[in-house]
Amino acid sequence: MRVAAVIMAGGRGERFWPSSREDLPKQFLSFQGDQTLLQRTIRRLEGIVAPEDIWIVTREDYASLVFEQVPEVPVRQVLLEPQGRDTAPCGALAALYLHHTDPDTVMVLLPADHLVLQEDQFRATLSAAVAVAAGGDHLVTLGIQPTRPETGYGYIRVGESCVSPGDHAAYRVAAFTEKPPRERAMAYLQEGGYYWNSGIFVWRASTILGALWQHLPALMEGLSPLKAALGTEAEGEVLRTVYPSLPKISIDYGVMERAENTLVIPADFGWDDLGTWAALERVIPADGEGNIISGRVVAVETRGSVLQSMKDRLLVTFGLSDVVVVDSEDAILVADKARVSDLKAVVGRLEAEGLKQHLRRPLSLPSGSAD
Amino acid sequence: MRVAAVIMAGGRGERFWPSSREDLPKQFLSFQGDQTLLQRTIRRLEGIVAPEDIWIVTREDYASLVFEQVPEVPVRQVLLEPQGRDTAPCGALAALYLHHTDPDTVMVLLPADHLVLQEDQFRATLSAAVAVAAGGDHLVTLGIQPTRPETGYGYIRVGESCVSPGDHAAYRVAAFTEKPPRERAMAYLQEGGYYWNSGIFVWRASTILGALWQHLPALMEGLSPLKAALGTEAEGEVLRTVYPSLPKISIDYGVMERAENTLVIPADFGWDDLGTWAALERVIPADGEGNIISGRVVAVETRGSVLQSMKDRLLVTFGLSDVVVVDSEDAILVADKARVSDLKAVVGRLEAEGLKQHLRRPLSLPSGSAD
Repeated sequence: MRVAAVIMAGGRGERFWPSSREDLPKQFLSFQGDQTLLQRTIRRLEGIVAPEDIWIVTREDYASLVFEQVPEVPVRQVLLEPQGRDTAPCGALAALYLHHTDPDTVMVLLPADHLVLQEDQFRATLSAAVAVAAGGDHLVTLGIQPTRPETGYGYIRVGESCVSPGDHAAYRVAAFTEKPPRERAMAYLQEGGYYWNSGIFVWRASTILGALWQHLPALMEGLSPLKAALGTEAEGEVLRTVYPSLPKISIDYGVMERAENTLVIPADFGWDDLGTWAALERVIPADGEGNIISGRVVAVETRGSVLQSMKDRLLVTFGLSDVVVVDSEDAILVADKARVSDLKAVVGRLEAEGLKQHLRRPLSLPSGSAD
Repeated sequence: MRVAAVIMAGGRGERFWPSSREDLPKQFLSFQGDQTLLQRTIRRLEGIVAPEDIWIVTREDYASLVFEQVPEVPVRQVLLEPQGRDTAPCGALAALYLHHTDPDTVMVLLPADHLVLQEDQFRATLSAAVAVAAGGDHLVTLGIQPTRPETGYGYIRVGESCVSPGDHAAYRVAAFTEKPPRERAMAYLQEGGYYWNSGIFVWRASTILGALWQHLPALMEGLSPLKAALGTEAEGEVLRTVYPSLPKISIDYGVMERAENTLVIPADFGWDDLGTWAALERVIPADGEGNIISGRVVAVETRGSVLQSMKDRLLVTFGLSDVVVVDSEDAILVADKARVSDLKAVVGRLEAEGLKQHLRRPLSLPSGSAD
C-alpha cells in the first residue's frame, strides 16, 4: 500500500504579523525550537509516509521558501498554484497526480501550519485513519477532542460507530457545523460527541476523485485538461492555464459536508491551528508569571503576555497584563491579547495608510525565523 | 546691572529611557520641535540674560554634548563637575565665578531639563524676580501655581506680601514642604497659598555666598582653594581636586529651607519638570483619542497613550489604553502609563541582568533626538 501526504502550504497567515509577512507566511516560521511549522509537519509524518511520497501544494510565490526549507521533497512533487483557490482545488489537483500513478494510493491531506504537541499520538491516530481509508470507500477526517468552548473552529458531530482499527474508533459523521457562537460551543462541550474539525483528511485517491466528481463536477471539468497533460511537458503550462478559473471553495464545504461516506476518528494529540499570537500560550509552556517570552526581554510586573524581541534588541515591559508585543526588524506590534484575533484587519489597514512596505519582509530579514 | 544665568545641566534623567541614556540625559533631548531642552532653556532667557552671560554647570561626561548643542556659550563658562554633588555645590561653584568678576551680579540659577509653555510669561516673571533680587538681600524663588494635587513636587507656602514689582507680587516664604502624600497635596490645592517649588532661583552672587557661608560652611570651606585659584592656570585642576569631597546636598535643603531672607514670586507659565514619559501629555497636545504620537505609528483602538517610534520603524498598537511605548535603535519600552514614575528602578535592573550596554547609547545613535 502506498501512502502519500499532500501538505497544503499556500496559506497567507497575516495573523502573525510582524513575524509573518505576505512573502513569509506562518508555515515558514518557527515557533518552538529551530524547525519551521512546515518542517515539523513533514517530520511528524515519519514512519507513515516515506520522504519520496511527500507532496506539497503551495503558491508560486512561496516556491523558493519551500525548496529552501524542505530540499528533501522532490521538486516535481512541489505543486505550484498560480493563485490560491482554497482547499478543494488544491486537494483535487494533488489527487489527480497521485491517482495518475496509483489510483489506490492512500492520500493524507493536511495543512502545513498547524502545531501538534504529542507527535507519537498523532502518528498512532493517523495510522488508524490510513488503515480505515485503505480498507473502504471512506472520506476520513480527524476530529480533535475539544478542550475549551472555542468559537474559531468548525465542529464535527459523531454518529454511529463504524469500524475500530486498534485503539481508535471511527464514527460516521452525523454533521459538520459552522463556527458556533460561544453559548453553542459551550453546549457542544457539555453534551459531548462534538469534535473540532482539524482539516486533516485521509482517503484513497480514487475515493476523493469520485466524491469530487459527484459534488463539485465543475471543478473536475475545469481540471480535465490537466489530467490529460499529466506526465507530459505541457503539464506545468496547463496547470497555470486552468487553475485560476477553478471555483474557489473549501473541501469541507464542497465535499465533506455533502458526502455520505464521511467518517471521523476522534483524536487527542495536542493540536492547535495557531490561529493567533494568543494561541502560543496554549502550546508553549509559560513562565511563572504566565508569560511566553522569546529573545532578549526584561518583563517587570508583567503577566499573561506574549513577548518576543529580535536579535540584539531589548524589550522591556513594565506593569502590563495580557498584551502581545512582537518586535521585528522594521516593525513592532503592541496589542491587547484579547484582540489579536482581529489582527488581520489591522494589518490590512497598513496598505491604505501608505505603509505597504511593512507587509513584506524588509530586505535584510532572513526567512524562517519568528524571533 | 549684570544678570547672569547658571544652567544646571548635569542631571542623569534615567526616567526617559530608552530615549535618554547614561550618556545622553533628558536635557540633551528634544521633545517638541527640533530644539533640545537645554537649547530651549537658553533661548527662553533671551532679552533677560545676554548670551555672553550664560554659564552652564554640567558633568565632565556631558561636556561634548554641551559644546555641540550650545556652541554660543563661551567654553570657559561651561563649568565641569568631576561628579554630581547635587545643587548646592553646583550653585556655590557658579556663584564664586560670578562673584569673582562682580559681587553684585544677579544670578539666575535654573535647571536645563524643564519645559515652559508660555515663554513670554516666563520672561515677565523672571524679570520681576531679577528686579527683586537686585534690590535687596533676598533669595528669590519662583513658585508655580499648582494645577493638580501633584505628589512628585515640593511645595512652598507663601507668607506675608513683601514687594510688588510690576504685576508680580513677592511674598516671604512661610515654609518649604517635602513632596506631600496625595491627601495633603489635595488640601494644599483647596487651601490655596501653596506653590510648586520650581527649582528656579534668583539672587545676587554676594547674597547666595553669604547664605552658603551661613548655612553650609563646610561646603564653602571645601571650595576655598578654588576661590584662591580663580583666574589662574590652576583653576581647573583645583576644581577637580576639591569638588568630589564637597558635601552632596541640594540648595533647597541646604540653604532655602534654613534661610530667613527667602522670597517667592508666584508664577504661571505652563511649567513642567518633565519627570516621566507620562508628563508629555501635559505639555504636548494629544490627538482625538488622547494619544501623544511621534514617528511612524498606527494606533488602532488605542487611547490615552504615549507612542513613539523611531526612524523608518513602524509601531502598530491595537486595543490598548494608557500605555507608553517608546522605540529606540537597540531597545523598546512598553509600560503602563501609571507606572512610568518608577521607570528608574526598572532601568536600574538592566545592569544586574547583564544588559548594561542598553544603558548607554548604541554606537550609531545620534545625539539630541528623542524620536
